[in-house]
Amino acid sequence: MNLKNLETCKGLIKGSYVDQAIQGTSQFNKLLETLLIHKKLPNIGYNDKIIELILNEISMMDSNNFIENIGVGEREGRIYSGLVEKRHYGFAHGIGRSGDITEQQPKAAGSSLIQKLTHSLVLDAMKLAGLEQSSLSNCLLLPMATGMTLTLTMLTLKSQQSQSNKRYVLWPRIDQKSCLKSIITAGLIPIVIPNILEGDMIRTDLNILEEKIKELGVDNILCVFSTTSCFAPRVPDKIIEISEICKRYNIGHIINNAYGLQCSKILNNISQACKLGRVDAFIQSTDKNFMVPVGGAIISGPNKEFIDQIARNYPGRANSSPILDVFITLLSMGKQGWLDLLKERKELLIYFNEKLSTLASQFNERLLNTINENKISFALTLSSKILNNTTQDKEITTIGDFKNSFSFSMIGSKLFSRSCSGSRVIDLETNKKAIIGGIEFNNYGSHIENYSTSYLTVACAIGITKIEIDTFIQRLSKLFKQQK
Amino acid sequence: MNLKNLETCKGLIKGSYVDQAIQGTSQFNKLLETLLIHKKLPNIGYNDKIIELILNEISMMDSNNFIENIGVGEREGRIYSGLVEKRHYGFAHGIGRSGDITEQQPKAAGSSLIQKLTHSLVLDAMKLAGLEQSSLSNCLLLPMATGMTLTLTMLTLKSQQSQSNKRYVLWPRIDQKSCLKSIITAGLIPIVIPNILEGDMIRTDLNILEEKIKELGVDNILCVFSTTSCFAPRVPDKIIEISEICKRYNIGHIINNAYGLQCSKILNNISQACKLGRVDAFIQSTDKNFMVPVGGAIISGPNKEFIDQIARNYPGRANSSPILDVFITLLSMGKQGWLDLLKERKELLIYFNEKLSTLASQFNERLLNTINENKISFALTLSSKILNNTTQDKEITTIGDFKNSFSFSMIGSKLFSRSCSGSRVIDLETNKKAIIGGIEFNNYGSHIENYSTSYLTVACAIGITKIEIDTFIQRLSKLFKQQK
Amino acid sequence: MNLKNLETCKGLIKGSYVDQAIQGTSQFNKLLETLLIHKKLPNIGYNDKIIELILNEISMMDSNNFIENIGVGEREGRIYSGLVEKRHYGFAHGIGRSGDITEQQPKAAGSSLIQKLTHSLVLDAMKLAGLEQSSLSNCLLLPMATGMTLTLTMLTLKSQQSQSNKRYVLWPRIDQKSCLKSIITAGLIPIVIPNILEGDMIRTDLNILEEKIKELGVDNILCVFSTTSCFAPRVPDKIIEISEICKRYNIGHIINNAYGLQCSKILNNISQACKLGRVDAFIQSTDKNFMVPVGGAIISGPNKEFIDQIARNYPGRANSSPILDVFITLLSMGKQGWLDLLKERKELLIYFNEKLSTLASQFNERLLNTINENKISFALTLSSKILNNTTQDKEITTIGDFKNSFSFSMIGSKLFSRSCSGSRVIDLETNKKAIIGGIEFNNYGSHIENYSTSYLTVACAIGITKIEIDTFIQRLSKLFKQQK
Amino acid sequence: MNLKNLETCKGLIKGSYVDQAIQGTSQFNKLLETLLIHKKLPNIGYNDKIIELILNEISMMDSNNFIENIGVGEREGRIYSGLVEKRHYGFAHGIGRSGDITEQQPKAAGSSLIQKLTHSLVLDAMKLAGLEQSSLSNCLLLPMATGMTLTLTMLTLKSQQSQSNKRYVLWPRIDQKSCLKSIITAGLIPIVIPNILEGDMIRTDLNILEEKIKELGVDNILCVFSTTSCFAPRVPDKIIEISEICKRYNIGHIINNAYGLQCSKILNNISQACKLGRVDAFIQSTDKNFMVPVGGAIISGPNKEFIDQIARNYPGRANSSPILDVFITLLSMGKQGWLDLLKERKELLIYFNEKLSTLASQFNERLLNTINENKISFALTLSSKILNNTTQDKEITTIGDFKNSFSFSMIGSKLFSRSCSGSRVIDLETNKKAIIGGIEFNNYGSHIENYSTSYLTVACAIGITKIEIDTFIQRLSKLFKQQK
Repeated sequence: MNLKNLETCKGLIKGSYVDQAIQGTSQFNKLLETLLIHKKLPNIGYNDKIIELILNEISMMDSNNFIENIGVGEREGRIYSGLVEKRHYGFAHGIGRSGDITEQQPKAAGSSLIQKLTHSLVLDAMKLAGLEQSSLSNCLLLPMATGMTLTLTMLTLKSQQSQSNKRYVLWPRIDQKSCLKSIITAGLIPIVIPNILEGDMIRTDLNILEEKIKELGVDNILCVFSTTSCFAPRVPDKIIEISEICKRYNIGHIINNAYGLQCSKILNNISQACKLGRVDAFIQSTDKNFMVPVGGAIISGPNKEFIDQIARNYPGRANSSPILDVFITLLSMGKQGWLDLLKERKELLIYFNEKLSTLASQFNERLLNTINENKISFALTLSSKILNNTTQDKEITTIGDFKNSFSFSMIGSKLFSRSCSGSRVIDLETNKKAIIGGIEFNNYGSHIENYSTSYLTVACAIGITKIEIDTFIQRLSKLFKQQK
Repeated sequence: MNLKNLETCKGLIKGSYVDQAIQGTSQFNKLLETLLIHKKLPNIGYNDKIIELILNEISMMDSNNFIENIGVGEREGRIYSGLVEKRHYGFAHGIGRSGDITEQQPKAAGSSLIQKLTHSLVLDAMKLAGLEQSSLSNCLLLPMATGMTLTLTMLTLKSQQSQSNKRYVLWPRIDQKSCLKSIITAGLIPIVIPNILEGDMIRTDLNILEEKIKELGVDNILCVFSTTSCFAPRVPDKIIEISEICKRYNIGHIINNAYGLQCSKILNNISQACKLGRVDAFIQSTDKNFMVPVGGAIISGPNKEFIDQIARNYPGRANSSPILDVFITLLSMGKQGWLDLLKERKELLIYFNEKLSTLASQFNERLLNTINENKISFALTLSSKILNNTTQDKEITTIGDFKNSFSFSMIGSKLFSRSCSGSRVIDLETNKKAIIGGIEFNNYGSHIENYSTSYLTVACAIGITKIEIDTFIQRLSKLFKQQK
Repeated sequence: MNLKNLETCKGLIKGSYVDQAIQGTSQFNKLLETLLIHKKLPNIGYNDKIIELILNEISMMDSNNFIENIGVGEREGRIYSGLVEKRHYGFAHGIGRSGDITEQQPKAAGSSLIQKLTHSLVLDAMKLAGLEQSSLSNCLLLPMATGMTLTLTMLTLKSQQSQSNKRYVLWPRIDQKSCLKSIITAGLIPIVIPNILEGDMIRTDLNILEEKIKELGVDNILCVFSTTSCFAPRVPDKIIEISEICKRYNIGHIINNAYGLQCSKILNNISQACKLGRVDAFIQSTDKNFMVPVGGAIISGPNKEFIDQIARNYPGRANSSPILDVFITLLSMGKQGWLDLLKERKELLIYFNEKLSTLASQFNERLLNTINENKISFALTLSSKILNNTTQDKEITTIGDFKNSFSFSMIGSKLFSRSCSGSRVIDLETNKKAIIGGIEFNNYGSHIENYSTSYLTVACAIGITKIEIDTFIQRLSKLFKQQK
Repeated sequence: MNLKNLETCKGLIKGSYVDQAIQGTSQFNKLLETLLIHKKLPNIGYNDKIIELILNEISMMDSNNFIENIGVGEREGRIYSGLVEKRHYGFAHGIGRSGDITEQQPKAAGSSLIQKLTHSLVLDAMKLAGLEQSSLSNCLLLPMATGMTLTLTMLTLKSQQSQSNKRYVLWPRIDQKSCLKSIITAGLIPIVIPNILEGDMIRTDLNILEEKIKELGVDNILCVFSTTSCFAPRVPDKIIEISEICKRYNIGHIINNAYGLQCSKILNNISQACKLGRVDAFIQSTDKNFMVPVGGAIISGPNKEFIDQIARNYPGRANSSPILDVFITLLSMGKQGWLDLLKERKELLIYFNEKLSTLASQFNERLLNTINENKISFALTLSSKILNNTTQDKEITTIGDFKNSFSFSMIGSKLFSRSCSGSRVIDLETNKKAIIGGIEFNNYGSHIENYSTSYLTVACAIGITKIEIDTFIQRLSKLFKQQK
């Protein structure tokens, strides 16, 4: 309530009580002012009531919510369903204008404000997570998941050099379909760079990368597409070295950092890569790092002009829902909440590692030695003894695609049917060939041609709890034990 | 509550009351069954309580909402904020899988169900609006607005012919930036086809179109990009004839039908175009036709395989929020509500036309004669007399870009500052040159080089009310009158 | 957002857009100002978004929602559950103080404001419904249903005369248990005044009333307890005459006007009764008149001091939830919505009457002639022919208490099991004796000893729709027909 | 979704995914089944999503939510406003029937179920808090705060003995207005039993109590009204001894246990009192013990018949909102949450005590020695030195009634204006006389005629946090220091 109306309340209730209310209200206004001025995560997260009040007040800045507004255009932010209006807090106009996805809308000052603030909050959260200022010239939160965002980024990179022949994308193998597809959908040609082994770890082969550059010719190569966050025993690409190569040959470099924002080691590497070599953009998912529903990705990089160019390249308006999710979430976390989440994950990583090692040795399996490089996921060997135990579990009706196959894969499906989601089994007993975008892959899923053992991977991702880890170990152990 | 639990309630409350409740509950179950079996708009829309119950029950099918679920993957649908969880009804996994945006997710049966049902409901709504079955082989609702969706459609068209040189897109001029940008972002080259005049109407020049085809060579042309919904005095492109040309020359044809789903004349033309000629896809906005917030587009067309190809071409997962909005909205409208909205718009079109004609003649202006072809918007001439009246309104602080300019444009800004949004003024006194995507346009905004008069356009879009029309006429009239 | 923060937004988004937002926001502030100053129903009801914003802004005036608040008392408005906080918009302190239920709370200026405003809105709604100003000295909305509110009213009346012997309450028979119980719970002694017949109508017997007064002695009588809203064929008590008698003998008069606020004829009578005779208070339900959930009652009357005395007599604080419901509802209705509801009910009364008459004659039954006095409900005779038809309906499993009894009652239970609620069957074939509060009643439910016929009653209450009436007639007709 | 509909989903999505969803859904059904069968707090509280789903499913059992329902009664649970419907989850019929507040409603099986379950959960929570089974024959949660509930309880006690003269209520002085008023509103006569001092503690004077019984005569005394929860330096009444006296003289005994449910010592005493003597009922507030908004009270006692009699004595229906709040809250807490809250309060009591002692000694004040008996609140002496310091604080605009008075009271108002609510100052420098219900009290607020010192009281109530205590100590200290 504005001051004038508060004063008017004195005609209804005691003046001294209203004065107290004015003081209370001003605490809220001050909090909002701080947000508008500093554009950073609040130290302590706001409670839901405060967040909703902020959203409702900001949405009153959009013309479709003006009390006297009438609309005679083709898009007036009319919302048919009250439920839909409610879930969007009355924001109807999305973000952007035809010219630029970050352009402000005259009809929707509130939506524009949310977008602007969210970008600032995201930058702040990225810094807090460990990225250096110089790598973060700007950021762009798009309402598309990482795959489509990678496509748009490459299309923009390509458009900057429109007369050229640059159509190859050098891509250290990562067996995740949407990565490959993002290249192909952009109309570009992926060149697979096979990985090499270092102990248990699957790593970037820099030699082959450089050879391929020479072979294809710098003028034909748009960029290298590297990956940081991945499932063990693959470890993050050597992005510092790659960026140096890219700088040397003057070719683009795009980093798929899908869920790497939760890992300070990766972020340090990105910062170094930006400093020492060439990085055009690194892209991360909002859902995997900020615990929001699937639907957004953040593009950042050391070169503001390129980020802005992507924004300008996006045709038309877009959905503001993923931005709203991030806005709400970051205000709710606050600086303390965000730092706590990062810290807890780090601590639980060690805990999970120990628990898995113990479990492994109990069953004569081994936790693959990848923890020095991959700080997010683990891989546990699966040998035939385990298989013998677990496949005799007759009473379980198996799930989905795995029907009728007695194999390691069943461990995954059994875990899933026991309400454990997210673990993956890589069964190398049977070579799984896959053709994706016209390219054939052996042992698809394992990131390399011939790994030495089948294994089970699990991740220690942001938001995981100790109870989840304990329960998982318990259920997996029970599954392994089933026959002894 | 399931039957077993209802029976258990008899331990707590009278059996006969529980029996009555069982009967009541079964009415709900039957309603849901009908939806699942027929997959059509319900005759009468559901109330919000029913819709929310359906959403909450379906979201319990997603693994992140299982009570015993634990997650050890990198994306487990964890939602940090209770507000965010609530606004998405617990749906966290988005839609699609890396292989295909319409692929079902093992972790998210509920989300997959919503997507499937929504596609069926949208198809039903499109049929009810007037499209023929044969034009609607399938549909794809993407969580991207029309611009980016057009880009993806063209990228897919291009990818089908990857070895070819097809890089030109023939584009009958429509002065809406994101259309042009959607071509350029796809890495394609737009070829502008200038329009011609027919009376007051700005129309497709089929001769030039055909000449250009011959000039550029069929092998170099990817498609024609036509537009149906537009602001008067431009009228919808002659899509039937264009589709026949495309068929004859075997080139692609994509129709931007942004807000054309609300207009039966346009839909008839699309049906005919699909039948008589070649149409690869027609794209429409969800917000402009179904009254949801900005953020979704629907691709449809007579060739199911092509629509499926677009789905497969989308890299990775996507945000499900725009799908949820449409799902809720169509269940809320029901068949009756949707047909009523379409009918009311049709009736108000005539009413609005009359009101504007009367107003025009009062001020010696003229309503341009476009109603036979453009059934959504109107244009009212602006001559200098009006200008003289309105510019002397000193007490108004003008808005935005229009500052300091005494011109027709001020009428638009004044209307906006009087809480009338959506009208646009095309001021031809000053030639507005614009360079977009490297192409120069004269009198940008008017769709043609030299129209004979400045004018004001307004639309009679779905959801508009009689009160809005009356208020608009009143405010505009007051503005025109200001000096007499 | 207050002006200062809006101005601060100019650091983030374009100044001209912010200016437009300021204008939009001020439309909201003006609307709220009007409410605070005039304290009347808005002409047009507010939409839900506006209402929630108002509630959220007002709740920020309560100390438990102050951002910096800490509490060291025994009742600090802490709310454990976010769901509970949400459903009360953060209002936690209830209403009133130990001294007076209408007293303002220092800790809860917002709650106090809501209570104050609601009382004003209710007074306005009562005037709009037809009560004269002079009958409405004040009003008191208590979070108790009518029964308990009647008890408190009588306790207060009694307390004003604490030395006296006044313990009798003269009560024209109305067969609704909670009326009788409200007297007994107050520790008073009800004296039943039997009704008489006038044609089909069951009416107040003023002679017996006056005789009883003389018999018991004025000094021993606390008040007459009359009833306006009731089920046909009973009609409203002759409250004008009763009030005149009460004035003459100087005894109290309390009117149970439970659902009479929807009926202008009743309200005219109350206004007259207040003017010509003595009325201490008339009490009405919030749920039955304003379409909110059960839980509130409104006390009003011509003597402000007595109403205030009831407020002061209420010990301690109380739940504010029913007040919030009425506040939201009246703002949502607005003057227009409220008047429309009243008008529609009046029109549907005639429609329902016609439909029932037609149905009655089809089955050789008769609609009892009560419409001149009872403008809310109807009674349809039930003769044995109907019974013969309907009881043979074997396939129906009967509901509840009616099991095994082949009687008129089954019609009621069958209607209920066909999802028709609210109709009541009075079966006079079997004398239903009831002892309530130690008093024996013959034919309990029919308001009189020996009515001439069994019957079915139904009401045409506020909010009923034409579709409901049509469906009811259809279902009842089908039930009657079952055997022909 | 019921099993049949889940199976129907297999026509839309993969069977194996649906099977997984069936498994997930059955986890929910099992949880609900456990609740329905055991009727106890779940071990771990449910999350909000689960609670809302339960509420929505139960509300579908009420006839107003049946899809095909039509209503022809005078009260059909129609809810005008969608906001109101939402906040009550569609529950419209309140609780009870005219005959009994705990009677089940044929139209509202769901509402009846909620009421039943809530009573069971409350009983369980009371046991968990420390009450013995034998004291808890039953409980009754009424939608009235403690004051009005006490009135109803005494009216019921009185009604059981309707021919008698029992009109005196012996009431050990507690300076809380609504207690006294609850007696007077019931039409009874309070007899004040003055307290005595034991060290710093203000305690029950059993001698005077017994003398008064003899003086007034057992036949004239309805009951003793004792109090457990109170502000230091008053300590809980000696309820064991009182109950023994009541048993001996055969007079009623009602215990006002407003916020005593959070204190195991009080509950032990109540259990003993029930065992060794006579307790008719003990009444507690829902808001003060369960952290819900003001509005409900719980009556319990060792004699089930008496509790049931109160339920039967309540005339008519009532608001179900306070019941819903408790239901949601207890499900949300779960057993663990409830026990944790109780434990935390106990621990913070010691912490708060230490902090206050330290503060006291810093300023040459003293924490009154009451902790052995009063385990909820504290009192800190206020001597004139403090006054000198604090009253010179010129820059503060004082609040409310305290304006212009330079006194200890200002400390309270200053704390309040610094967003500390709940502390109370008892200023004995000026004798505050008060006449309440015709009775004159000296030094009203201090529970005794002549206490030796002025003081400040604060409570350590359930839900308080360590941060709140620290902040309070900080702000109070700053206030005390202001001049040194």
